[in-house]
Amino acid sequence: MGESIYGLKRTHMCAQLSVDDVGKTVTVMGWCNKSRNLGGVIFVTLRDRTGIIQVVFNDTTDPEIFAKAVPIRSEYVLAVVGEVAKRSPEAINSSLPTGEIEIIAKELRILSSAETPPIYIEEDSDVNEATRLKYRYLDLRRPDMQRNLILRHRVAKIARDYYDENGFIEIETPMLTKSTPEGARDYLVPSRVHPGKFFALPQSPQLFKQLLMVSGFDRYIQIVKCFRDEDLRADRQPEFTQIDLEMSFVNVEDVLTINEGFIKKVFKEAIDVDLETPFLRMPYREAMERFGSDKPDIRFGFELVNLSDLAENCGFKVFADAVKNGGSVRAINAKGCGSKFSRKEIDALGEFVKTYGAKGLAWIVVGEKEHKSPITKFFSEDEVNAILARVEAEPGDLICFIADKNQVVYDSLGQLRVEVARKLGLLDDKEFKFLWVTEFPLFEYDEEEKRYVAKHHPFTSPMDEDIELLDTDPSKVRAKAYDIVLNGTEIGGGSIRIHSQELQTKMFKLLGFTEKDAWDRFGFLLEAFKYGTPPHGGMAFGLDRLIMLMAGRNSIRDVIAFPKGQNASCLMSNAPDVVDPKQLEELKIKFDL
Amino acid sequence: MGESIYGLKRTHMCAQLSVDDVGKTVTVMGWCNKSRNLGGVIFVTLRDRTGIIQVVFNDTTDPEIFAKAVPIRSEYVLAVVGEVAKRSPEAINSSLPTGEIEIIAKELRILSSAETPPIYIEEDSDVNEATRLKYRYLDLRRPDMQRNLILRHRVAKIARDYYDENGFIEIETPMLTKSTPEGARDYLVPSRVHPGKFFALPQSPQLFKQLLMVSGFDRYIQIVKCFRDEDLRADRQPEFTQIDLEMSFVNVEDVLTINEGFIKKVFKEAIDVDLETPFLRMPYREAMERFGSDKPDIRFGFELVNLSDLAENCGFKVFADAVKNGGSVRAINAKGCGSKFSRKEIDALGEFVKTYGAKGLAWIVVGEKEHKSPITKFFSEDEVNAILARVEAEPGDLICFIADKNQVVYDSLGQLRVEVARKLGLLDDKEFKFLWVTEFPLFEYDEEEKRYVAKHHPFTSPMDEDIELLDTDPSKVRAKAYDIVLNGTEIGGGSIRIHSQELQTKMFKLLGFTEKDAWDRFGFLLEAFKYGTPPHGGMAFGLDRLIMLMAGRNSIRDVIAFPKGQNASCLMSNAPDVVDPKQLEELKIKFDL
Repeated sequence: MGESIYGLKRTHMCAQLSVDDVGKTVTVMGWCNKSRNLGGVIFVTLRDRTGIIQVVFNDTTDPEIFAKAVPIRSEYVLAVVGEVAKRSPEAINSSLPTGEIEIIAKELRILSSAETPPIYIEEDSDVNEATRLKYRYLDLRRPDMQRNLILRHRVAKIARDYYDENGFIEIETPMLTKSTPEGARDYLVPSRVHPGKFFALPQSPQLFKQLLMVSGFDRYIQIVKCFRDEDLRADRQPEFTQIDLEMSFVNVEDVLTINEGFIKKVFKEAIDVDLETPFLRMPYREAMERFGSDKPDIRFGFELVNLSDLAENCGFKVFADAVKNGGSVRAINAKGCGSKFSRKEIDALGEFVKTYGAKGLAWIVVGEKEHKSPITKFFSEDEVNAILARVEAEPGDLICFIADKNQVVYDSLGQLRVEVARKLGLLDDKEFKFLWVTEFPLFEYDEEEKRYVAKHHPFTSPMDEDIELLDTDPSKVRAKAYDIVLNGTEIGGGSIRIHSQELQTKMFKLLGFTEKDAWDRFGFLLEAFKYGTPPHGGMAFGLDRLIMLMAGRNSIRDVIAFPKGQNASCLMSNAPDVVDPKQLEELKIKFDL
Repeated sequence: MGESIYGLKRTHMCAQLSVDDVGKTVTVMGWCNKSRNLGGVIFVTLRDRTGIIQVVFNDTTDPEIFAKAVPIRSEYVLAVVGEVAKRSPEAINSSLPTGEIEIIAKELRILSSAETPPIYIEEDSDVNEATRLKYRYLDLRRPDMQRNLILRHRVAKIARDYYDENGFIEIETPMLTKSTPEGARDYLVPSRVHPGKFFALPQSPQLFKQLLMVSGFDRYIQIVKCFRDEDLRADRQPEFTQIDLEMSFVNVEDVLTINEGFIKKVFKEAIDVDLETPFLRMPYREAMERFGSDKPDIRFGFELVNLSDLAENCGFKVFADAVKNGGSVRAINAKGCGSKFSRKEIDALGEFVKTYGAKGLAWIVVGEKEHKSPITKFFSEDEVNAILARVEAEPGDLICFIADKNQVVYDSLGQLRVEVARKLGLLDDKEFKFLWVTEFPLFEYDEEEKRYVAKHHPFTSPMDEDIELLDTDPSKVRAKAYDIVLNGTEIGGGSIRIHSQELQTKMFKLLGFTEKDAWDRFGFLLEAFKYGTPPHGGMAFGLDRLIMLMAGRNSIRDVIAFPKGQNASCLMSNAPDVVDPKQLEELKIKFDL
């Protein structure tokens, strides 16, 4: 089989037909979703990208055509010419957009036959992921997978419309660039013309987009592939897509405003969700204090409460020592969970926080008169009351305490509040809560290398107010850097860059770059900065992650057409693979396996 | 220097201001194009992406501000607040859109100073290309380079609008794929997780876009980077961009119609050129016969004329033997060139055709009674007259003949006619003549490997009418393949694919693929074809080349932001380069230099 479409022209997509078309002769083409042969009548549901329509071969059909329809099986590709008719009342399928009509076939061509596919072509098929990846071209026939990719198309289109309206020029940057071994590992591309040398695939267009600002393009946008040779997790791919942008003559607020405008528009137009702008802007310091995280999930409360002052001199040594050693004691009030969680569940929370470095979880189940708790015995009644008042405890509440170094307290409690919310069913993936986290620290102290490293990248500008602190106390310097967070996931971030050569030189010094280092890695950018650099800044959105959240999916693989599996390989195409020895010779490469 | 923009907000781009804005206080930011200090008054032309505006510091300016303006030099980055005023009549510059107005400065900030740039920032700067590439970020400040990239942005935007309106879904395909060593060389990416194995960067998304048709997406589009590790020429880059598309349930005419619709729209909206559609469709056979080329330039005539029947038994042995040996004798009539070209110029044409394999050029300068020619003496008068009648010769014409194997005749005469047109000034890059060349041969015979190879790729479908010839005379089989040609340059091409497994198997056999070969290279596509393959076909446009022609440029480097230089290296960023030995260890790579 393999008839041609010669002479036939499709008139409609399957689900474009409706009762308004009854009586018309139409030509549809698509895949057989199901065929049922009831003896004198054959029903074939025909499927294309728009949906499904029922085709009927019955006693009004030419017997030759009817006979042709008999061998039709699932996934056969068909062309049908027929008349649109109303279904009889008992045959109406109200769950289908085309459920009131059917096509009475007059002509049929079997364009392709099909073997029985190893995957059911249906919504939310319960097939293991390895099979889905190996037969990706079948997995992508499923309606939910098609919807994901069509959503992705729409979001990218809306992005380009929006940024174009706002004066952004889309400019392509090179894929074959120079390795800058920082951040993640680079994927390398050996050069045949210069054996022994490599290109690298870009981790981001960062340096090029800054050059485009130096070149005077004013506003740049690109929806572009980026590459990181890292170990993969559920939400990471070796190649991923960013909506990458840069602007000139702007400050932080200008960047945030333009970009939340995009988010508002795309959520409305792509998934019909209304968002209020401006989004909350929360400084890093506050995000850590209140939520223990620089990407807080603000769909629910359970904010962190600082009890260090009460704990410092209390009777519980664990608490007191934590504070004395420079750490803190903080708690969340899991409202009503005292009643809801069993002892076993509370113990499970204790195990949970250990994965974030806590030694354990101290807790109080608040009662009317008496409280259940392994720690209240260490406190006086006044101390307990002061603590409970601070966390605004009511009977039935579960108070969870972590006492440790700040980083452990923030991590554990920050994750614990999300875990509690999850258990209580408070994480609704159709509720979209955004915020900007701003004023990130400029530096982090790297314990291994015993020096300050840039928390973002070496071109990130300090806040004007903190410039003097660069000389006196770098750890306190805040950056003009910002992340955009959706439901506890960071979906983008960026910063205003340094445009003063003097300040840039100072930054490199503070980061421990020798002048040679700086020029080796960033030479052409530093050279460019000599010739008139405008104030500039920008950001990038992780498009895969954004689509995943908009589509309500858990894995970015579900919003990428041909993703890699867990060991950075493509199960479908067998990449990576060995190559012809001739190719290795041309590159002068040998392996030392 | 390096003042911040704190407190200032740009109100207008430089060339957005006009006489309608006189009296307004505005804030502009940009680069100093030129500054002139005439003692009591300083003129600064300020430049941004939109153009230029004159800023004036005079005796109404606060002396502190005036003093600040004194050190301003070219390429300093400035922010100016001032009042828009009419220029005095003698100062009006009618060649500038803002030539009637100027800004009387009230406030000035020098955001960046600049060293003297090594490139003049002006239209069509006469700088050698190596310098332009090394200081690309300065080269890109030039108005013509900015126009090129803004045109590119606009064309890509219009493409996405058009194809979206026509039901095409933009889907990203992988960059890290499997090497298919055919066509050009692949760029390889060594795998760290699977040492000894490689990914390849895709030469095109061909296999993936066909899978997307198998998946039922119906219409796919992508503006995507493709990679070929070939030796570069003026019009080739290691990475280049295609507008890549595929459609289901279509025949050749459907593909051509949709795509010439795009071309018509983009030429109108991007460069205000009206094109007549449908474009001419010319079968390959006819293109070769009439123009000696499968990508004919139809801006002018000088079509090839076949004289083989007259030459076969004529007195000139060179002509007669060519025909007897299976070749041909053809000529072009270079109208009026007999008078226009000197003997020296005609000899130069003789050298010209040798570069295409011809042994030499036979020619006749047509006279009223007598002709000038090195060959007329070999013919009878009747033979000469028959030849001249065939080519419709008139006095003053130059008739150029090539007698040889067909391939040499076509190549030489095909190129000669273009060369003659060039010399006569007939190649106007503002005249845009399109055509589709269709019905390409399915096979070429590879002299080296002594077998048929696919002229396009092994999935290209034969024309229905020629299917029986596959068994009897493959060399005569025409493909459902088409190229789109603009002014003698191929800017895109594609084909309808084979969707019948039976036919595909037959094709592989004819191409000399063993079943193992076919499965090694294309296994996952062949597997996919088992599960219901729709009729499908598509094409790709070379976006770089298209923009180059629309912009009237000669080199694709002028329409790419950061192109590679001639040895596939980036002069600006020093890529490719050596990498850290640690990176090589992780990949287990050694070099055998």
